[in-house]
Amino acid sequence: MSPKKVSETYTLKTELVLPNDTNNLGNLMGGKLLHWMDVISAIAAQRATRRIVVTKTVDFVEFKNSIPLGAIVILEAVATRVFNTSVEVKVDVSYEILNTGEKKASNTAYFTFVAVDQTGTPIPISSLEPETEAEKKLYEEASQRRELRLLLAGRIKADEAEFMKKLFEEYK
Amino acid sequence: MSPKKVSETYTLKTELVLPNDTNNLGNLMGGKLLHWMDVISAIAAQRATRRIVVTKTVDFVEFKNSIPLGAIVILEAVATRVFNTSVEVKVDVSYEILNTGEKKASNTAYFTFVAVDQTGTPIPISSLEPETEAEKKLYEEASQRRELRLLLAGRIKADEAEFMKKLFEEYK
Amino acid sequence: MSPKKVSETYTLKTELVLPNDTNNLGNLMGGKLLHWMDVISAIAAQRATRRIVVTKTVDFVEFKNSIPLGAIVILEAVATRVFNTSVEVKVDVSYEILNTGEKKASNTAYFTFVAVDQTGTPIPISSLEPETEAEKKLYEEASQRRELRLLLAGRIKADEAEFMKKLFEEYK
Amino acid sequence: MSPKKVSETYTLKTELVLPNDTNNLGNLMGGKLLHWMDVISAIAAQRATRRIVVTKTVDFVEFKNSIPLGAIVILEAVATRVFNTSVEVKVDVSYEILNTGEKKASNTAYFTFVAVDQTGTPIPISSLEPETEAEKKLYEEASQRRELRLLLAGRIKADEAEFMKKLFEEYK
Amino acid sequence: MSPKKVSETYTLKTELVLPNDTNNLGNLMGGKLLHWMDVISAIAAQRATRRIVVTKTVDFVEFKNSIPLGAIVILEAVATRVFNTSVEVKVDVSYEILNTGEKKASNTAYFTFVAVDQTGTPIPISSLEPETEAEKKLYEEASQRRELRLLLAGRIKADEAEFMKKLFEEYK
Amino acid sequence: MSPKKVSETYTLKTELVLPNDTNNLGNLMGGKLLHWMDVISAIAAQRATRRIVVTKTVDFVEFKNSIPLGAIVILEAVATRVFNTSVEVKVDVSYEILNTGEKKASNTAYFTFVAVDQTGTPIPISSLEPETEAEKKLYEEASQRRELRLLLAGRIKADEAEFMKKLFEEYK
Repeated sequence: MSPKKVSETYTLKTELVLPNDTNNLGNLMGGKLLHWMDVISAIAAQRATRRIVVTKTVDFVEFKNSIPLGAIVILEAVATRVFNTSVEVKVDVSYEILNTGEKKASNTAYFTFVAVDQTGTPIPISSLEPETEAEKKLYEEASQRRELRLLLAGRIKADEAEFMKKLFEEYK
Repeated sequence: MSPKKVSETYTLKTELVLPNDTNNLGNLMGGKLLHWMDVISAIAAQRATRRIVVTKTVDFVEFKNSIPLGAIVILEAVATRVFNTSVEVKVDVSYEILNTGEKKASNTAYFTFVAVDQTGTPIPISSLEPETEAEKKLYEEASQRRELRLLLAGRIKADEAEFMKKLFEEYK
Repeated sequence: MSPKKVSETYTLKTELVLPNDTNNLGNLMGGKLLHWMDVISAIAAQRATRRIVVTKTVDFVEFKNSIPLGAIVILEAVATRVFNTSVEVKVDVSYEILNTGEKKASNTAYFTFVAVDQTGTPIPISSLEPETEAEKKLYEEASQRRELRLLLAGRIKADEAEFMKKLFEEYK
Repeated sequence: MSPKKVSETYTLKTELVLPNDTNNLGNLMGGKLLHWMDVISAIAAQRATRRIVVTKTVDFVEFKNSIPLGAIVILEAVATRVFNTSVEVKVDVSYEILNTGEKKASNTAYFTFVAVDQTGTPIPISSLEPETEAEKKLYEEASQRRELRLLLAGRIKADEAEFMKKLFEEYK
Repeated sequence: MSPKKVSETYTLKTELVLPNDTNNLGNLMGGKLLHWMDVISAIAAQRATRRIVVTKTVDFVEFKNSIPLGAIVILEAVATRVFNTSVEVKVDVSYEILNTGEKKASNTAYFTFVAVDQTGTPIPISSLEPETEAEKKLYEEASQRRELRLLLAGRIKADEAEFMKKLFEEYK
Repeated sequence: MSPKKVSETYTLKTELVLPNDTNNLGNLMGGKLLHWMDVISAIAAQRATRRIVVTKTVDFVEFKNSIPLGAIVILEAVATRVFNTSVEVKVDVSYEILNTGEKKASNTAYFTFVAVDQTGTPIPISSLEPETEAEKKLYEEASQRRELRLLLAGRIKADEAEFMKKLFEEYK
């Protein structure tokens, strides 16, 4: 298993907001968007691992703007880093107003996936190689995001959260 | 607008895992479950506000177990606290194995929703009244979860995060 | 196979009426509601039998009110009685108007399901134990509903329909 | 409003059983079939009335055979008789085994629909003219089916049910 | 394998245009109609072959009219001719305006399907017997349509396209 | 209306083949793929026109390979040329085998769309500017594809089909 390049995992999905995707105000429902985000980031995770993957975690998501019926939604996912049997994927959502072509940011989220064999047992993944500055930054910061996940999942305690401790050190 | 009781917002949704909801291993896909979680918690938020609501945030979600095809999925949502124009909802997901009736936890998550009028403008919500000890605990802790959301969304800085600062104070 | 309690089979499903569920007047289509009613009563039947179940019959259904787009639909199902390899389930449908929280009855129906093994062959089901007065009444009246089913299905003749005969005796 | 011929309302729908339409045994779920039956009979009712129609009742339905994944399902609907603002539709369901072309009956059901204007208010429907012997028989027997519906819906009492009374007279 | 009659393959599908099938103008989307056309012609091909079939080609399709939300869509498919392991199907689409019953043509298309065994390997199909004049005309002209398909697929060269050569001969 | 660049219309959609998208052999159904192709090329047409577009024609499509359940499908669309009120879009479909990452071509097709205003009336579109050699080639050849469309749609006669006449001239 030779390391893969981050850019090989880049995945793009363009969708159209249809009536059944919308709420009473005619805007895209959050749940539908989360569904699309999961699918696109699962594909990026598959490209990083060439394995069946199962969704493990979703980090904090904030929906910044309402996306109207008929808008073009653009979902971009890329794997950022591998941790033993799991891989982190960053997904960016934006949308385009039909008439003007104006593009607006909707939200960014991080999903993690576990690679499994046919019995559902986790298996090791070969590492990912960041190349650009942006990829390297995402790679580096993945450790902090992972620490917060472990803390929120109750797998580590506050005093094991090194990044968090450092962050709040100055405000003691 | 008189305050509502927390128990009035309790919402239950039972689903059956169908073929199209599953991945290559025959387990429920994370994205489909997120979709269901958004719908059920939106209904709880509507019951808390009697208004159209739009999904604002989703907190960290960890999927603990794979839910197989044919399983009965149980989603329970309840509004925990109102903050001016937004309401926090807790959603608990569990599932039941058909043959044995054994019930397993899948995950817990917190969604927030903003109540809006017909033009999509946020409007104030009347407060929620916790009655039981469990409801009061959720109500109290909602402030901490909100602080973390504001921090992760970049709306407050680390030195404004009072709960976090206190939590890490002892580990400095 | 020890008898199960009726209350163990109680199943609740909350749904939101979405655009694709509606007809040209923006009301929930009968066929979609029948679909939901079948799913929820199948889950109640599974909880009564811990077996795969297949829909056998649907009794007379009357839709009393139109349910509008955006309404919250509440489906409640409970198994009432076991007859050898089949189980009867009662399903009650109501809905809630978003703004007021007003709850209205939509309809009540009885479904029957046959418990089958992996080859689709019917298998005996352990009996159900009614506890409350309401459960006992449903249990008792199940015989009459079953008789009407057998009559309508052409499995018994009019002169074998004891309940019906008694009902019409006085009007001869 | 001149009377329409029964044959003008005949409607046929051919469907293929897809994975998501099936239960754990790979057979068509009852609820999905009920959904299709409602759609096809609504179209027949529209052809009888040239109006928007809403489902009012579904008579007793018995599913005789399991329809497997991949089977061709044939739904045939025809309006049988008009009663002031409502119309009765008969729907016959059969299916075809792919390899042999063997055709098997699944079930027959009667739906009634109410014709409404844009505000949802019921409006009178012009009458239907049966031509063949089979159409005339369905037309005649519609009164009996209607009586049973009114009885089951609690709109008439047993002593007003003339057909039922006559049927059970001889068995007193 | 005795030859089948063309009329045995005739397949009809009636659909209702629902909200999610429509674009921003409230008209049926071309892609949804193509999906329905593929399903109905696949059923006709199955009836011609009694085999699993896979879509091989779609000829030029022109959508002549916009089909509005709520319209009744009528799809009629019939197999026209067998070529070794493949079968050509003609599909005609029309629609009916609810209020008036006026029927309008939408489009006509030709699909071809390959009959395959369980491993996906193409297998020979018994021939189809046209009976009426219309069926014989479709049978005869199938050769020309096939030639154009082979030409457009790059399987024959222009100088092997006998029908085309003859057609343009006079215009040289 | 200043001319747009061809590259501004490029649209990519990545999909996962789910159970309900497949036929009895577990391969993607042609009709589902046609649906996806229509959606992605409509988005490219919208980007070329910044208008609501309706599907006008689909050219000959040949499905070269079966795409299995779980495969990653890649759809790429780009507008090639504007003709008064219509725009031609080329769509390329390929797929990726999960385990190996091997990418295979599935098919190529040309769709045309008409730009319309809110009443559905066709409106003129500003022209498209090809820049690369490949774009210019597609632009040039669009005239030939258009001629064949007009011929197949019966809008021109064989003797008006200049490209076709020239093609077959040498084989007379």
